[in-house]
Amino acid sequence: MAEGIKLAVVGATGAVGQEMLKVLEQRKFPASEVICLASERSAGKKVAFQGQELTIEAIRPEAFERADMALFAIESDVSREVAPMAQANHCIVIDNSNAFRMDKDVPLIVPEVNPQAAKNHQGIIANPNCSTIIMVVALNPIHQAVGIEHITVSTYQAVSGAGKPGLEELQEHVGNYVKGIPNTPKVFKHPIEFNLIPHIDVFVEEGYTKEEMKMVNETRKIFGVPEMRIAATTVRVPVFRSHSESINIETKKAITPEEAREVLSKAPGVIVQDDPTKDLYPMPLLTSDTDEVYVGRIRRDISVPQGLAMWVVGDQIRKGAATNCIQIAELLLQNKWY
Amino acid sequence: MAEGIKLAVVGATGAVGQEMLKVLEQRKFPASEVICLASERSAGKKVAFQGQELTIEAIRPEAFERADMALFAIESDVSREVAPMAQANHCIVIDNSNAFRMDKDVPLIVPEVNPQAAKNHQGIIANPNCSTIIMVVALNPIHQAVGIEHITVSTYQAVSGAGKPGLEELQEHVGNYVKGIPNTPKVFKHPIEFNLIPHIDVFVEEGYTKEEMKMVNETRKIFGVPEMRIAATTVRVPVFRSHSESINIETKKAITPEEAREVLSKAPGVIVQDDPTKDLYPMPLLTSDTDEVYVGRIRRDISVPQGLAMWVVGDQIRKGAATNCIQIAELLLQNKWY
Repeated sequence: MAEGIKLAVVGATGAVGQEMLKVLEQRKFPASEVICLASERSAGKKVAFQGQELTIEAIRPEAFERADMALFAIESDVSREVAPMAQANHCIVIDNSNAFRMDKDVPLIVPEVNPQAAKNHQGIIANPNCSTIIMVVALNPIHQAVGIEHITVSTYQAVSGAGKPGLEELQEHVGNYVKGIPNTPKVFKHPIEFNLIPHIDVFVEEGYTKEEMKMVNETRKIFGVPEMRIAATTVRVPVFRSHSESINIETKKAITPEEAREVLSKAPGVIVQDDPTKDLYPMPLLTSDTDEVYVGRIRRDISVPQGLAMWVVGDQIRKGAATNCIQIAELLLQNKWY
Repeated sequence: MAEGIKLAVVGATGAVGQEMLKVLEQRKFPASEVICLASERSAGKKVAFQGQELTIEAIRPEAFERADMALFAIESDVSREVAPMAQANHCIVIDNSNAFRMDKDVPLIVPEVNPQAAKNHQGIIANPNCSTIIMVVALNPIHQAVGIEHITVSTYQAVSGAGKPGLEELQEHVGNYVKGIPNTPKVFKHPIEFNLIPHIDVFVEEGYTKEEMKMVNETRKIFGVPEMRIAATTVRVPVFRSHSESINIETKKAITPEEAREVLSKAPGVIVQDDPTKDLYPMPLLTSDTDEVYVGRIRRDISVPQGLAMWVVGDQIRKGAATNCIQIAELLLQNKWY
């Protein structure tokens, strides 16, 4: 792979796939070839990449013969079907879906947090859930400094989490609202315009949603602390791209807000935006289209002996999905873990 | 007051004042006369009430000579100025502002929660903060059943919390967005359309906002538990009228979600909307213009030995302000506490 690797982007027409192409270009990812794959329906369409036009090919086993690595931006069930095609052709899969995240043999990687875990992959590396990535990037520096024992998180998740159709539904419904045209929800179960939906993904166990349990189980796996105490409430909000999270933590050792700010300001991938005197704190509208995780409103949790409260925001399509996948690919290249 | 009381509505042109007139009418409040007061600027304007037109009068001491009771829907600083005018005329004040809430001699009342505390008022009764009312109506039945020791709450607060100008700003900015006209925030410090602002009221202590500390201090006062452990994060969201709250509690005695649902379903002012199999949970768009507090997503808090998580929604202008004030007035009448 000396002259650059051959990279497949699978699901290249979706919101995350499109963003992957943009991020590959912006980060000057050393690919000698980029192969764009998508469903039969999209085959033959053109997508822009580095001033050229690439033609979308249908997903087929043969396509993976030409690829060293593949970024999957497809639904879980499609990932399960397509991953064996890549593996049979010795093409490493970096999968953005939920399909393999909790598999014992599949590393679940956030490069700022647990890069070493990627080393012994067996051909598939999973990209965590977007809300999980954004949370662990913000919490890891504090976890490393003083140990986190308990996390209570409530999310405010953008419609981009439901892909292009989610983005289009909010856009279209707001347009209709202004024109006085009634709306019927299609992508979301209920109206998303001027509303909040406390339900993301399906209900699974004990009244929790799958999205909430992803935040619990994936965070434990990424931190390597299977017994970490975590409770999540995940809520869809009428925001386009960035997810926000209100987080309360309890720590093993005490840490002051000043110390936390100091630790976070030195952490990779984190930007501290925290100055109440200047009305400065992260907001989703202003952090969209960026790769970092923004942390603000850092203060003592006054309800526990040792704890912090904070407000965390990150672009769901970028750091929550496309950028993190590409950082995993870069991690493999830099360490020759392929 | 046998033939009904003479009631002043102070701030009758604002969002809460207007709603008070509507609620008085709907609840057939036994007033023999309703006197509408507002700033000098609004004097002479007409407002609709029970099929008649009432003329707004400027706020003046003499106006309170004709009133037995006054509902204040004005800013804190105006309340502080006007309350002595009412008191000098033996007119009982029910104040929706923050001016007197934490005064030792002023009862802070939510009729479903602490009606008895209103008995020994000294001429002023305070209506709690809207987010606090909505939270304590939902939590009180559980607090009575098993005792609440710890509350962690993150809010999703509607623009109506900033009054008519807040409602107008979201409406206008969304219209401009659809037409491609750039927006400049006026009422809010930052754009509210398609955004979240983790900052309501001013910053006060240790990085907390006044809104957050209201939820802490007012809840303690209403429950009569000065040491109750409470942490709040309050966030403005692009929703018109209803506030939503993601609440995690720890209880003294254990309670199952089923038991909590049972207790809540019998509680005054509470509607349980909680059936994951039917995608049923409270949502702000569907609970606006109602007087109840809606509770759903009731589940075990899996991160603590004894706790619950839940999602609570209520109309900020109604139960959070106008309706609660009028319920306080009804409480005084029913018990002859005047």
